[in-house]
Amino acid sequence: MKAAVLHGYDEKLTAPDFVTYEDVPEPQIRNPTDVIVRIGGAGVCRTDLHIIEGVWRSKVDLKFPHIMGHENAGWIEEVGSAVTHLKKGDPVICHPLITSGHCLACRRGDDMHAEESEFPGINCNGGYAELLRTGARSIIKLPKSLAPKDVAPHTDAGLTAYRAAKKASRHLLPGQFAVVIGAGGLGHIGIQVLRAMCAARIIIVDRADMALQLAQECGADFAVKADGSELDEVMRLTGGKGAEAVIDFVGEGDAVAKGLAMTRDGGYYYIVGYGGKIDIPTIDMITSEKTIVGNLVGTYPELIELMALADQGKVTLATREYRLDEANAALHDLHHGKVRGRAVLIP
Amino acid sequence: MKAAVLHGYDEKLTAPDFVTYEDVPEPQIRNPTDVIVRIGGAGVCRTDLHIIEGVWRSKVDLKFPHIMGHENAGWIEEVGSAVTHLKKGDPVICHPLITSGHCLACRRGDDMHAEESEFPGINCNGGYAELLRTGARSIIKLPKSLAPKDVAPHTDAGLTAYRAAKKASRHLLPGQFAVVIGAGGLGHIGIQVLRAMCAARIIIVDRADMALQLAQECGADFAVKADGSELDEVMRLTGGKGAEAVIDFVGEGDAVAKGLAMTRDGGYYYIVGYGGKIDIPTIDMITSEKTIVGNLVGTYPELIELMALADQGKVTLATREYRLDEANAALHDLHHGKVRGRAVLIP
Amino acid sequence: MKAAVLHGYDEKLTAPDFVTYEDVPEPQIRNPTDVIVRIGGAGVCRTDLHIIEGVWRSKVDLKFPHIMGHENAGWIEEVGSAVTHLKKGDPVICHPLITSGHCLACRRGDDMHAEESEFPGINCNGGYAELLRTGARSIIKLPKSLAPKDVAPHTDAGLTAYRAAKKASRHLLPGQFAVVIGAGGLGHIGIQVLRAMCAARIIIVDRADMALQLAQECGADFAVKADGSELDEVMRLTGGKGAEAVIDFVGEGDAVAKGLAMTRDGGYYYIVGYGGKIDIPTIDMITSEKTIVGNLVGTYPELIELMALADQGKVTLATREYRLDEANAALHDLHHGKVRGRAVLIP
Amino acid sequence: MKAAVLHGYDEKLTAPDFVTYEDVPEPQIRNPTDVIVRIGGAGVCRTDLHIIEGVWRSKVDLKFPHIMGHENAGWIEEVGSAVTHLKKGDPVICHPLITSGHCLACRRGDDMHAEESEFPGINCNGGYAELLRTGARSIIKLPKSLAPKDVAPHTDAGLTAYRAAKKASRHLLPGQFAVVIGAGGLGHIGIQVLRAMCAARIIIVDRADMALQLAQECGADFAVKADGSELDEVMRLTGGKGAEAVIDFVGEGDAVAKGLAMTRDGGYYYIVGYGGKIDIPTIDMITSEKTIVGNLVGTYPELIELMALADQGKVTLATREYRLDEANAALHDLHHGKVRGRAVLIP
Repeated sequence: MKAAVLHGYDEKLTAPDFVTYEDVPEPQIRNPTDVIVRIGGAGVCRTDLHIIEGVWRSKVDLKFPHIMGHENAGWIEEVGSAVTHLKKGDPVICHPLITSGHCLACRRGDDMHAEESEFPGINCNGGYAELLRTGARSIIKLPKSLAPKDVAPHTDAGLTAYRAAKKASRHLLPGQFAVVIGAGGLGHIGIQVLRAMCAARIIIVDRADMALQLAQECGADFAVKADGSELDEVMRLTGGKGAEAVIDFVGEGDAVAKGLAMTRDGGYYYIVGYGGKIDIPTIDMITSEKTIVGNLVGTYPELIELMALADQGKVTLATREYRLDEANAALHDLHHGKVRGRAVLIP
Repeated sequence: MKAAVLHGYDEKLTAPDFVTYEDVPEPQIRNPTDVIVRIGGAGVCRTDLHIIEGVWRSKVDLKFPHIMGHENAGWIEEVGSAVTHLKKGDPVICHPLITSGHCLACRRGDDMHAEESEFPGINCNGGYAELLRTGARSIIKLPKSLAPKDVAPHTDAGLTAYRAAKKASRHLLPGQFAVVIGAGGLGHIGIQVLRAMCAARIIIVDRADMALQLAQECGADFAVKADGSELDEVMRLTGGKGAEAVIDFVGEGDAVAKGLAMTRDGGYYYIVGYGGKIDIPTIDMITSEKTIVGNLVGTYPELIELMALADQGKVTLATREYRLDEANAALHDLHHGKVRGRAVLIP
Repeated sequence: MKAAVLHGYDEKLTAPDFVTYEDVPEPQIRNPTDVIVRIGGAGVCRTDLHIIEGVWRSKVDLKFPHIMGHENAGWIEEVGSAVTHLKKGDPVICHPLITSGHCLACRRGDDMHAEESEFPGINCNGGYAELLRTGARSIIKLPKSLAPKDVAPHTDAGLTAYRAAKKASRHLLPGQFAVVIGAGGLGHIGIQVLRAMCAARIIIVDRADMALQLAQECGADFAVKADGSELDEVMRLTGGKGAEAVIDFVGEGDAVAKGLAMTRDGGYYYIVGYGGKIDIPTIDMITSEKTIVGNLVGTYPELIELMALADQGKVTLATREYRLDEANAALHDLHHGKVRGRAVLIP
Repeated sequence: MKAAVLHGYDEKLTAPDFVTYEDVPEPQIRNPTDVIVRIGGAGVCRTDLHIIEGVWRSKVDLKFPHIMGHENAGWIEEVGSAVTHLKKGDPVICHPLITSGHCLACRRGDDMHAEESEFPGINCNGGYAELLRTGARSIIKLPKSLAPKDVAPHTDAGLTAYRAAKKASRHLLPGQFAVVIGAGGLGHIGIQVLRAMCAARIIIVDRADMALQLAQECGADFAVKADGSELDEVMRLTGGKGAEAVIDFVGEGDAVAKGLAMTRDGGYYYIVGYGGKIDIPTIDMITSEKTIVGNLVGTYPELIELMALADQGKVTLATREYRLDEANAALHDLHHGKVRGRAVLIP
């Protein structure tokens, strides 16, 4: 089959071609619960650039050649002997993790904290290819309203934003405020989720005018430009007290310190973006009684919930399509900020 | 001052005049925490008809002459010596209960279960009058966007619907269903609250086409006519499994049995309306693991939350105004189903 | 293999032998996820008597010959091709349901509401035998401290009591009250669970002095004899207000009405026992804002939690052992109230 | 009346006498809701030493002469005109904050986040005296089993430990672990609360053998000496995964970093002690999905809950009594680690 293959790191992202479009062996069913998916679309994520740069080297021991692509959707091609509820041709979206389902975390519905798991595209071959091997437990059948290529990025970008916004939505009450920091690929989903699941007034904070405009189209009530005055402006909008929930999709630079400062006493700061540090005296945590919540992708049931929102048109995703043999163009466009919404590779 | 006064029961509601428009002594500050409110609007509620009929006789020992009216809003007229945060002229809405705030229920925010309380209009004089005595703890200041006469019915009808719908909204997830039985004065508020606070698909069940249409304007996704086929139709819409939440604003006739049957295994049946009975074998509760939840008005913080929804235009209330000296016309119109939305008396 | 086989109903439970001890074919692995367990102990439950009587006939279409026994523990004998985490000889306890794990309920950890499931002993062959076929997803490995025959009844009796008491324990606060109605096989577990997981004062209500004594040994703070004065006595102990949680392990006769009456305004009535009816006017549910909660066995993670309590000695189970060929004696003893704690069949 | 008065800061805590025992004017009722309490006992807290040192100078603008003492219990001496539920001689314990009860936080039961409040002993005169002015809303009547001088430290030390441990207890399940860092005045209460309210296995981490022994008497299952190997040892005890809850009563030095490292993925780190910093890369919060929770004293209902635990003997407090004229001895003993449990001043 054809695939866009990564053969080594490129720490400065300077190569004209990061990946090579080439023939590779097809993935095979290895376990009775394995599934082969014919890729309909594979999202291109900033994490893919970080993989190429070697940022994840300390956490994941990558073996080259490697096929990236952790946001995958398509159609069932083949199933293992223990898989009886799926058949060839079923349109599906893939939860990013392969889990066995035996550990206590999985049995509680908390797949993301499975004791053992594989993460296609991250620590085994992913979806920058015609076919993908994953597990039956990762598969969600799609309703007819949703085409695989249109929803593939929901498996990571969408799901991560959904999980954080859902957590906030469950405690936000009418009259309260939610601040969303960053209206990019994740943030614009997060705003739509908040809008659908609670009545809090939503304040978007971003540096880019285009992002602020997108956020307002997505349902934000107030737009605050991150030009240095954003903390003051959020405090003004919230009556000097800050917001009951702050969802930080940036997680680096001064976003973290400002995000914590925008959080009201007794409120919640959800950290989603990464790159920076949380650095706060314990006395400030105590006198304010704030809570800091880490957020990691989402569970399989949460991906089903997000698909329900997509199916009902309550969450929509802007995508730009590239052919699989244009993977390098997609990666370069992403690197240079030329992709509106999310790039998706179509084999 | 002028008031519309009830001088005795009328069990069949046949009298041409239920109440008498007459001069009565003005209410006086008795406790340091008392407040006198100049009435801007007093909602006319079906419970008022039930009071006239004597339905509540077994629960409340009424002393005549009695002034009804438990849905009150207006402006502060006078405050007791211990009240420092309110001043004459403040536009306000009144939580229906007067509580001292000392018992544990109140300290937990659960005013409705206060150990001691008064309920103006029910067990002491209410708002069918120019002035009302209540307690400082019952007072919520109104934002400029909301006129007292337009929001008065929120203190009971709105608050009750809000509390039940809020409870459901906190566990309803995308892809799940909420059934609302009855799209009357409470139900049409309940639908708007669900729409604002969760992404569940909403099914309205009602006998009247006009109510079904109002419900859809309020945000219901599916309308089911209660013509005998409503249980089958709800089961069909929910894939044969029923809804994760059913909110029953009728609570009598076959609504209760059907409402419970429409509730999915593991789901919640919220009972708000009254008049009928819950009658179900214990084995059915056990094998289905359903939960039945009683609902009573709402707390002071919940009335603030509802005012936030009203202020943002997320919940609107249809009202029809009558002068205080037209109280009998309002009561008769309500009795004969001629009021669209909620009747409000304006002194 | 040997088994104690049921060949037909006996509606009055008058036969000297309900089951026949005989040779039957061994169960076979049918699916890649199947598991064969060598039985170490099989609990004898009142539900088994109800099966013999035909009480469940309307819900389960039983095919004779049938092997009862839904409380099973033992050792792994054989595993299907897709099962890699279990091996022959592992000591195990069996969650009562066989589920595929694919439906949304299972993925949320809520196995009891699986869309498709088998229930060995109820609707397919159970553990009154030397060998049992179940699914890999039902298997929990036992710690060395726990012998299969000593814990088998936890899979149903223990798990059901655990789930209801756990629910109550999560909202019960210091200073509050829990009433437990019935200190039998389930009730005495429920008391131990409440004692371990919350600080509420526990009131046991039972007709039998022996049960009241057992309950106090298990940690109940107050014992109330169900001699007709039990409602008054519970109200007296709770300051006239009732208990924040009532767990009804009886669920028939006047236990239900009294249990609801013992529940404080805003409190929770957990129904576990069955046979009777819930019959309450909707107005009483509304003015009291009580909640009625149905309870069904428990989830796989909950059985693991219960095993942790057993392992730490916080929950202990009284059992009486019978050989498998003495199954009729065990059933008759249970029928005639001669079993203290729980009867267990040992092959 | 007599009082132990602070006349200025002593940044190095070197003065032989920090406070002066002298005659001062008695406090007066100023508001209709004020209450004067005759002090039965006033706890001596490390925060008092920090006040003397000037540590709080940046947060609280202290006016000298100042009377410290924020852990107060005694008997009602006099009440304001709006106070009808308390009378002279009632034995009482004082919630540390004076609030009006009008703001939304108070109405939700969350007194600690009141918009306006006074904190006797911190920003107005406290209980190192014969009489104390506070508010009626701060007063809890004591049961006969509890003498004011024996419970006074519960109002701050006990309440803070209770609130943090209660939060953890509500999500900790059987089979899970709670780590308590520091078994001092707060920690030994926290352990008793965990023991009473959940079934988690409790690991105490402390430097001092005496503290470890006290912790085990209080119900800790495992004692880990903080000698540099504590992180390894906790990881070993928890199967390499850490604890579902870590309650850090130290909050300075390496306790914070180690406490976070001892927290299992998806777990909760409760920060109570202060002096240090939280310093963690955002990527670590995200991949681990940990939650960091700040904790501040506790609410009025929580103090009632703690009194219920004390009344039932489930939480006991070690105290050492000093006469009010021995306040300097108590403060010096505390400063030099010579107080076992909590010092209490008796007028």
